[in-house]
Amino acid sequence: MSSNNPDPQLAALIDLALTEDLGSGDLTTGALFTERAQGAAGLIARQALVVSGLDVAAAVFTRLDQSCSFKLLTQDGRHVKKGTVLARIHGPVRALLIGERPALNFIRHLSGIASLTAEYVKALKGTGCTLLDTRKTTPGLRRLEKAAVRAGGGSNHRLGLFDGAMIKDNHIAAAGSIRSAVNTVRKSIPPTVKIEVECSNFKQVRESLAAGADIIMLDNMPPEKMAKAVALVDGQAATEASGNITLKNIRAVAKTGVDFISVGALTHGARAVDISMELE
Amino acid sequence: MSSNNPDPQLAALIDLALTEDLGSGDLTTGALFTERAQGAAGLIARQALVVSGLDVAAAVFTRLDQSCSFKLLTQDGRHVKKGTVLARIHGPVRALLIGERPALNFIRHLSGIASLTAEYVKALKGTGCTLLDTRKTTPGLRRLEKAAVRAGGGSNHRLGLFDGAMIKDNHIAAAGSIRSAVNTVRKSIPPTVKIEVECSNFKQVRESLAAGADIIMLDNMPPEKMAKAVALVDGQAATEASGNITLKNIRAVAKTGVDFISVGALTHGARAVDISMELE
Amino acid sequence: MSSNNPDPQLAALIDLALTEDLGSGDLTTGALFTERAQGAAGLIARQALVVSGLDVAAAVFTRLDQSCSFKLLTQDGRHVKKGTVLARIHGPVRALLIGERPALNFIRHLSGIASLTAEYVKALKGTGCTLLDTRKTTPGLRRLEKAAVRAGGGSNHRLGLFDGAMIKDNHIAAAGSIRSAVNTVRKSIPPTVKIEVECSNFKQVRESLAAGADIIMLDNMPPEKMAKAVALVDGQAATEASGNITLKNIRAVAKTGVDFISVGALTHGARAVDISMELE
Amino acid sequence: MSSNNPDPQLAALIDLALTEDLGSGDLTTGALFTERAQGAAGLIARQALVVSGLDVAAAVFTRLDQSCSFKLLTQDGRHVKKGTVLARIHGPVRALLIGERPALNFIRHLSGIASLTAEYVKALKGTGCTLLDTRKTTPGLRRLEKAAVRAGGGSNHRLGLFDGAMIKDNHIAAAGSIRSAVNTVRKSIPPTVKIEVECSNFKQVRESLAAGADIIMLDNMPPEKMAKAVALVDGQAATEASGNITLKNIRAVAKTGVDFISVGALTHGARAVDISMELE
Amino acid sequence: MSSNNPDPQLAALIDLALTEDLGSGDLTTGALFTERAQGAAGLIARQALVVSGLDVAAAVFTRLDQSCSFKLLTQDGRHVKKGTVLARIHGPVRALLIGERPALNFIRHLSGIASLTAEYVKALKGTGCTLLDTRKTTPGLRRLEKAAVRAGGGSNHRLGLFDGAMIKDNHIAAAGSIRSAVNTVRKSIPPTVKIEVECSNFKQVRESLAAGADIIMLDNMPPEKMAKAVALVDGQAATEASGNITLKNIRAVAKTGVDFISVGALTHGARAVDISMELE
Amino acid sequence: MSSNNPDPQLAALIDLALTEDLGSGDLTTGALFTERAQGAAGLIARQALVVSGLDVAAAVFTRLDQSCSFKLLTQDGRHVKKGTVLARIHGPVRALLIGERPALNFIRHLSGIASLTAEYVKALKGTGCTLLDTRKTTPGLRRLEKAAVRAGGGSNHRLGLFDGAMIKDNHIAAAGSIRSAVNTVRKSIPPTVKIEVECSNFKQVRESLAAGADIIMLDNMPPEKMAKAVALVDGQAATEASGNITLKNIRAVAKTGVDFISVGALTHGARAVDISMELE
Repeated sequence: MSSNNPDPQLAALIDLALTEDLGSGDLTTGALFTERAQGAAGLIARQALVVSGLDVAAAVFTRLDQSCSFKLLTQDGRHVKKGTVLARIHGPVRALLIGERPALNFIRHLSGIASLTAEYVKALKGTGCTLLDTRKTTPGLRRLEKAAVRAGGGSNHRLGLFDGAMIKDNHIAAAGSIRSAVNTVRKSIPPTVKIEVECSNFKQVRESLAAGADIIMLDNMPPEKMAKAVALVDGQAATEASGNITLKNIRAVAKTGVDFISVGALTHGARAVDISMELE
Repeated sequence: MSSNNPDPQLAALIDLALTEDLGSGDLTTGALFTERAQGAAGLIARQALVVSGLDVAAAVFTRLDQSCSFKLLTQDGRHVKKGTVLARIHGPVRALLIGERPALNFIRHLSGIASLTAEYVKALKGTGCTLLDTRKTTPGLRRLEKAAVRAGGGSNHRLGLFDGAMIKDNHIAAAGSIRSAVNTVRKSIPPTVKIEVECSNFKQVRESLAAGADIIMLDNMPPEKMAKAVALVDGQAATEASGNITLKNIRAVAKTGVDFISVGALTHGARAVDISMELE
Repeated sequence: MSSNNPDPQLAALIDLALTEDLGSGDLTTGALFTERAQGAAGLIARQALVVSGLDVAAAVFTRLDQSCSFKLLTQDGRHVKKGTVLARIHGPVRALLIGERPALNFIRHLSGIASLTAEYVKALKGTGCTLLDTRKTTPGLRRLEKAAVRAGGGSNHRLGLFDGAMIKDNHIAAAGSIRSAVNTVRKSIPPTVKIEVECSNFKQVRESLAAGADIIMLDNMPPEKMAKAVALVDGQAATEASGNITLKNIRAVAKTGVDFISVGALTHGARAVDISMELE
Repeated sequence: MSSNNPDPQLAALIDLALTEDLGSGDLTTGALFTERAQGAAGLIARQALVVSGLDVAAAVFTRLDQSCSFKLLTQDGRHVKKGTVLARIHGPVRALLIGERPALNFIRHLSGIASLTAEYVKALKGTGCTLLDTRKTTPGLRRLEKAAVRAGGGSNHRLGLFDGAMIKDNHIAAAGSIRSAVNTVRKSIPPTVKIEVECSNFKQVRESLAAGADIIMLDNMPPEKMAKAVALVDGQAATEASGNITLKNIRAVAKTGVDFISVGALTHGARAVDISMELE
Repeated sequence: MSSNNPDPQLAALIDLALTEDLGSGDLTTGALFTERAQGAAGLIARQALVVSGLDVAAAVFTRLDQSCSFKLLTQDGRHVKKGTVLARIHGPVRALLIGERPALNFIRHLSGIASLTAEYVKALKGTGCTLLDTRKTTPGLRRLEKAAVRAGGGSNHRLGLFDGAMIKDNHIAAAGSIRSAVNTVRKSIPPTVKIEVECSNFKQVRESLAAGADIIMLDNMPPEKMAKAVALVDGQAATEASGNITLKNIRAVAKTGVDFISVGALTHGARAVDISMELE
Repeated sequence: MSSNNPDPQLAALIDLALTEDLGSGDLTTGALFTERAQGAAGLIARQALVVSGLDVAAAVFTRLDQSCSFKLLTQDGRHVKKGTVLARIHGPVRALLIGERPALNFIRHLSGIASLTAEYVKALKGTGCTLLDTRKTTPGLRRLEKAAVRAGGGSNHRLGLFDGAMIKDNHIAAAGSIRSAVNTVRKSIPPTVKIEVECSNFKQVRESLAAGADIIMLDNMPPEKMAKAVALVDGQAATEASGNITLKNIRAVAKTGVDFISVGALTHGARAVDISMELE
């Protein structure tokens, strides 16, 4: 996402965010500031955090008034200390005050995800295992939250249903077998997309390998069992651990040798961090 | 929000949520299920929680396929036990599997807010003080999150900048004084809207009362100071406590006699609760 | 409304206005002027009037071509004489000629409302009574027409159903009593919004006061009866006169002592004033 | 326009009308009526009038709630007496009360245009002259207002810039001569579209005829001069009278023998008629 | 169409084109080029062709990034040789690479239509007969394809159902006779629009003339029969030949003396020409 | 695509198609048929063809009028003879006549692609090689045209830039080497997406294999050279032939042993087939 790149969906989300807050107008600011009054403001980290969402915050202000300028003083992905000024905005005071809350709501939420992700990344340090997010994101904010995960040092699993085939229980039941499911999907999808099969036992792992699955998801297995599954796969496919993974147990999971660990809590379990805007 | 009431903004949000996930299509489900295959599924609480978002979940499925039927087995605002089936959906399997994740993302997020709100409401029980939310909501989800707060037993502060005038530091500085700010705003807003002034000391409280403010926000005051401020107001205006209020200190704040306590964490500090969908 | 502020709804209205007129293209202008031909034009008042809608007219031209410049020679709210040049536009002749009719349709309609409002305001001069508009506006043009009322010196009643609670007959019947209706609504609305009750007799006025209504609407009462109602209210609530109020009787109504008089005809009974565009 | 025909622009206008009024919700009705409460209401003419806009009113209610039924008791174009029930609506009380004002705003406005048009049509009775509207319509409501003119017995001039070529002063100046303008436009437009030239003197009329114009607009000519112009045209082209035509002088204008008379006031000079909705 | 003129429908089409290709992002370019990397590219004709669509190609790049500059080195309607550089684009490399395929898809498709049209125009040279397109266009690209026909030297028939009345078999059957159909339509349409009647035999031609049709379409007649029909019409109406007209027979058809020949294959039978983009 | 599945982009395309044709209304049909007139019509193949687009045609009619019913008499992908009735539609005559042209424009265009694809598929019969389309599609119709390719028996390459990484010259130049490009992209994309590298010589093929590319595109190689390249790859990656492939040479290309052959002409070189609608 970039303010330089068009994204009709991001534009729609920003309009939703502005409309729900501004509605028929800002009763207070509209009465007390003329259209011409100019001002400047800073976005300030009120705690240590990992930054994400600066571009969206900028887009909020320029959507309100094209004459707003937004100067980055850091960038997404940076770990900053409490008190750091993240950006400085110049423009009409009305735009600054109207944009304040929606811009903060975006950047606080996204930096919260980036900051939480960074903790998980730290826990994996040196294991060679890659941290992935999931599709458990806030409706409408998928791409922004996935960018926040990257800002925090994580990687993205598939963005949606369209850029990865994931065969689960219901699919296998419908197809009759893992082999049949993999074959049917293979014929239907573009040659550029891989097939992952969700497995909860060794039998399924073996069948998936035999069917030529590209990635084996090891779902909710205790570390020992998972280590055996990884050994069973033996490099014939990539492996992903999933299910009930926390900051406490993630390193143990990584040590089973899995290639990827996916953690839904990166996006659905993060809390907003504290960032404020100060008019200068 | 109701599936019976039109809401172009909610429709836009649901479309964003479906589009970001579905993109050019569900590679897996599209390959393995025909358009005609029908199925049924239940939404199941995997933990004790307060329900919110059933209507949105229903709207996700009917947006995907008008032939989906969504039968409520409980309703928003109910406290349910782990294992409760919240709703049952019938329709094309494709719609069920495609809608599963977006619908869950909505209802898990919103029920998380309702559940957290219920904890705060419980902490206030018997104090006569009203719990309010704030504008610190996820961009694009304002109305849904405010409905979740009501489902949890809380009340809503103004929905946006348009249905309440809130005079803060910057406004006072621009107007020259609290009196001037209140007078200017009063002339500008509809007669049906009240004026609230954010105060951090007794002098501001006195000036706000003299200016005829309808509501006095007592910002970030320790309980003792707040109690004095409430006494100073003495029923000439309504009072609202705000700033750094937690589950631990909220009851103490309420005992200062304030009419309202607003808590941003209801919306920005909640985590998703565990709800799953099971195909039957 | 300002060309500097975003307003997706105003943008949508301008697009509707341009699309309905331009359709698949201007057959005449497209044939006779190249894209490059530049020109200038003035918007000229063909009668004495009060100006409203200059910003919208500007937005029409810049929506057609971003290179159009629109120079204000007066501003909304000004009383101007016949012959006054309100604004001057420079830009591609195509944009000038295509924008002419939609821009004039806007500014003639809105200045008509401002001019009529100014007559009512004049009739109230010195009474201390505030003139309000109503929700009887042209569909899609609510905010613009409300801005025109302000340009004419009037004030706005609530902008819609969301920024003021208005309890009428049907609501009272549903709730069982005025008291019950007021109490139920009070619990449901944000603390920043007032409650108004529509009353047609003294009994209702008394019940409304007892229920704590913030504003009493005195509906369709003859001046003497209204004066008694105002005396009955005696400052315990604000009062608003409504119903069958004309330029002839408005001053008499004001002398009853009501705080507000609302007049639907400001918006639904105004006629367009005469403004033309002249290419220079 | 028909509720059976799709019209993305009408749908957009209705959404604008509902959104500007409903915003974040109806504070009063939402508090006092449950989603399930059903009701019925009638739309009643409070004065004699010509009906227009029933379909739009119906669309407002069904947009709010698909379960609303709207039963026509008359139809667009009918002259009805005071007290006539125009239509009856059944549906959720919330939808009835929320839709009341936007629906009435549409139908009162459009029936006002139809009623005024009918007066002009009556004044032309027996003259064989056709009454036309103009492009001086309320922005965004063009098609609805043109339908109202037809309901009143009038005919429509071109709907916009796309379905008729109209050569005016500026076009002639740019082309160098009427002949050149007509020739250039003829080469550019579809063979299915006619060319009209605006003339204010006999010389222009002669040049237009020589150039092969299909329609001659006689602009702002006194009746005698216009009669001579009509004689000059002598059936070689159709003729249209335009400019400063009122109910008082329109019959005299018609007697000059022009084929068409266009009257901008049909749309920009009409006032809303009185129609109300009564809950039963 | 011009990048200077607004066209919400063209903007919608470009957004569809970008969204369907870009989706959640360009996986390759996003990984390998920073947002800041600047570049330049040329659009090059890989075969002799007639140019159409340069403005749309420009709009694709500026929609992706407003900082892109697009310099025309030729213009729509020009016949260019193989190897000609049509335009040069400067801007962020990401925008250049992302815009390449959609921009080429537009300009190759539209130049294909222009080039094919030019062949037909050449075949008609000196006959005085005008080549028209039809409504057989690619859904969503009507205006662009009609502009391509003009670029190739052809003319446009009506753009749609709104700017010309075309009476066909089904209409005649419904009205009872050609006379009745023409009369009914005449009363309903704006005076600026002509009526065309589709005729397949001499009887229909005579009836159409008697009914006052403006244009007679001679449908699927062999040249000799058509010549007789043209003689029958004898200048009382314009004539259009339609049906099974190819590059081989079009000159023979023109020699029957018809005013217009319409050819659906201009738009539905053209193939894309070869144009490429080279990064410099 | 299915009329049962929501697809905001398809809905937008259908609206564009209807709006560009219908504009302010169908002048002919609106005058001659009442809203109530009902009718039936058949879609008939006027030549042998492979069907694609029935669902879109159905969606056109139901978008015009929800009461239209569309009964399939065959299905997408079927090879039908001249004279086959593909579907039968019942509904208001207005909707049938207004929808006729846009519906035919869709289905003729898409069936043209399916029919051409079927010819290529036939040419490959028995080779074991898979036919792929490209991104050279008509702007806005990507998904429909890719569905038409599948209807014709072909397979889809990536749908856009988001579901496959394709490293070309410019990317390699930016990264410094194929190895560097592959590594950089691998780290950036979801684990579910493959990497393809465009190669025009053996050196590039070897480097791509060494870098771990998943698919090797052999660009514009003569059959003998391509056969050597396939031998070089030797199953370590999938192979795709691309560039200047025609019906004449495709079988020879397949015999080189490549896994996939992609042909842009499937979509950009197809012509509409002949399908008509007959009112019954």
